[in-house]
Amino acid sequence: MNESLERSHRHISRQFNAELQLLHQHVLEMGGLVQQQLENACLSLIHNDEALADTVISHDHQVNAMEVGIDEACTQVLARRQPAAGDLRMVMAVIKTITDLERIGDAAERIARMAAHKSGHTQDSSSTVLPRVLVGIEHLSELTRSMLQQALDAFARMDVELALQVARQDAKVDEEYDDIIRQVMTDMKEDSDVIPVALDMMWAARSLERVGDRACNICEYVIYFVQGKDVRHIDLEQVQHDLNAAAPLTQEV
Amino acid sequence: MNESLERSHRHISRQFNAELQLLHQHVLEMGGLVQQQLENACLSLIHNDEALADTVISHDHQVNAMEVGIDEACTQVLARRQPAAGDLRMVMAVIKTITDLERIGDAAERIARMAAHKSGHTQDSSSTVLPRVLVGIEHLSELTRSMLQQALDAFARMDVELALQVARQDAKVDEEYDDIIRQVMTDMKEDSDVIPVALDMMWAARSLERVGDRACNICEYVIYFVQGKDVRHIDLEQVQHDLNAAAPLTQEV
Repeated sequence: MNESLERSHRHISRQFNAELQLLHQHVLEMGGLVQQQLENACLSLIHNDEALADTVISHDHQVNAMEVGIDEACTQVLARRQPAAGDLRMVMAVIKTITDLERIGDAAERIARMAAHKSGHTQDSSSTVLPRVLVGIEHLSELTRSMLQQALDAFARMDVELALQVARQDAKVDEEYDDIIRQVMTDMKEDSDVIPVALDMMWAARSLERVGDRACNICEYVIYFVQGKDVRHIDLEQVQHDLNAAAPLTQEV
Repeated sequence: MNESLERSHRHISRQFNAELQLLHQHVLEMGGLVQQQLENACLSLIHNDEALADTVISHDHQVNAMEVGIDEACTQVLARRQPAAGDLRMVMAVIKTITDLERIGDAAERIARMAAHKSGHTQDSSSTVLPRVLVGIEHLSELTRSMLQQALDAFARMDVELALQVARQDAKVDEEYDDIIRQVMTDMKEDSDVIPVALDMMWAARSLERVGDRACNICEYVIYFVQGKDVRHIDLEQVQHDLNAAAPLTQEV
C-alpha cells in the first residue's frame, strides 16, 4: 500500500472508531436520562408527588426521540462503514440496548401515571395507605434502580463479570415482587375500599419487576459483545462456566 | 465489466436476494409458531385446560431458539453482504420484528401459566367463575390475535395500508382492556374470595393488551421498511398524511 493510501486508511479507521465511541456515548447519555426518569417516577409514587409525576410524563418523549436518533445513527454506521466482527457486534449491542432503555423509560412513565392516579384516590398522605406495600415497593425500586445503574456501568466498561453479577440479582427481584403481590392481596381482602389504590401499586411493582428483566437484557448484550456469544435464554451458571473456559474475543470498546 | 465477472456479480446478487427471502420466510415461520402458542394459551385459559397450558409452556423454548437463530442469520448477512438502502432496512426490520415476536411468545407463556394457576384455584368449571370477565378476555383475545395475524400478513406482503389498519385497532384494544379491569374491580369488591382468580385474569388481560402493542410495533417496522421512515412515537394521522404525500421507496421484498 502506498503511503498516502495508508494514511487515508488510518484516517478512515480513526473516524470509524470515533463514530463507534459516539454511539457508545449516546447509549450512556440515554441511560442517564432513563435513570433520572425512573428515579423521579419512584419518588413521585412513594411521596405522592403529583407535580413530579407530571414532569416524568412530560419528559418521556425525550427518551423516545433518543431511541429513534440512535437507531438512525446505527443504521448509517452499518450502511457507510459496513462493520465486521467486534465492530458489528458493538452496533448490534447498541441497537438492542436502546430498545430496552426505551421500555424502561415507558415503565417510568407508567409508574408516574400510577402515582398521579393514586394521588387522585388518596386525599391524605400516602404513608397511611397500604404502608407495608409501599415499603416493599420502595425497596424493590432501590434494588431495580441499582441493577440498572450496574447494567449501564457494565455497558460503559464492557465488563462481563459485572454483567453476570447484575443478572444474578434478578432472582431477588422476583422474590420481592412476589412478596408485594401477596401483601397487596392480603390488604385487598381485608378492606375492599383499598382495591383501586392496591391495583395501582401492583402495576407499579410489576413495572419495576420488568425493569429488572430489562437491566438483565442489557447485561446479556454486554456478554454478547465481549464474548461473541448470544446468552439469552441460557442458564446463568452455564454462561459463567463457559466464560471461565474461554478467553474473551475483545475487551476494547 | 467482462462477461465472467458480470456473471459472477449476478450470481452473488441472486444468492443475496435468496438470503434476504430466507430471512423474511424465517420471520413468518416464527410468527406462525407464536400465533399457535398464543391461540393455545387463550384456549387453555378460557376452557380451564391445564394440559394445553402445559403444552404452551413446554414449547416456549422453540420460540426463543428461533429468535436467537434468526438474529445470528441477520448478523451474518450484515457481516458478509454489507447491505445498503432497502436491503439494510429489511435486515433491521427483521431484527426488530423477531424481538416483538419473542415477547408475544413470552406473553403466551405467561397466559398459559395463569391458566394453569387458575385451574388450581377453581375445582368446578371456569365458566362459573367471573363469567363477565371471561367473556371480555375471550373477546380481547380474538381482537389481539386477529391484529397479530394482520400484522404478519402486512409483513409478508410489506403492505403499508394494512399495517396502518392494524395500528388503528389499538384504541379498541385499550377500550376493551379498560372494561375488563373495571369488571375485575367490581367482582373483587363484591366477593373477596375471587381475588386470586381475578388477579390471574387481570394479568392475562394485561398480557393480551401488550400483544396488541407488539402487533402495532411490527406494523411500524413494515412502514419503516417500505417508506424508509421511522414512525415510532408519531401520531397515526400524521403518518397516513405523510404516506399519502410520498411515493414508497420500495415495494418489493
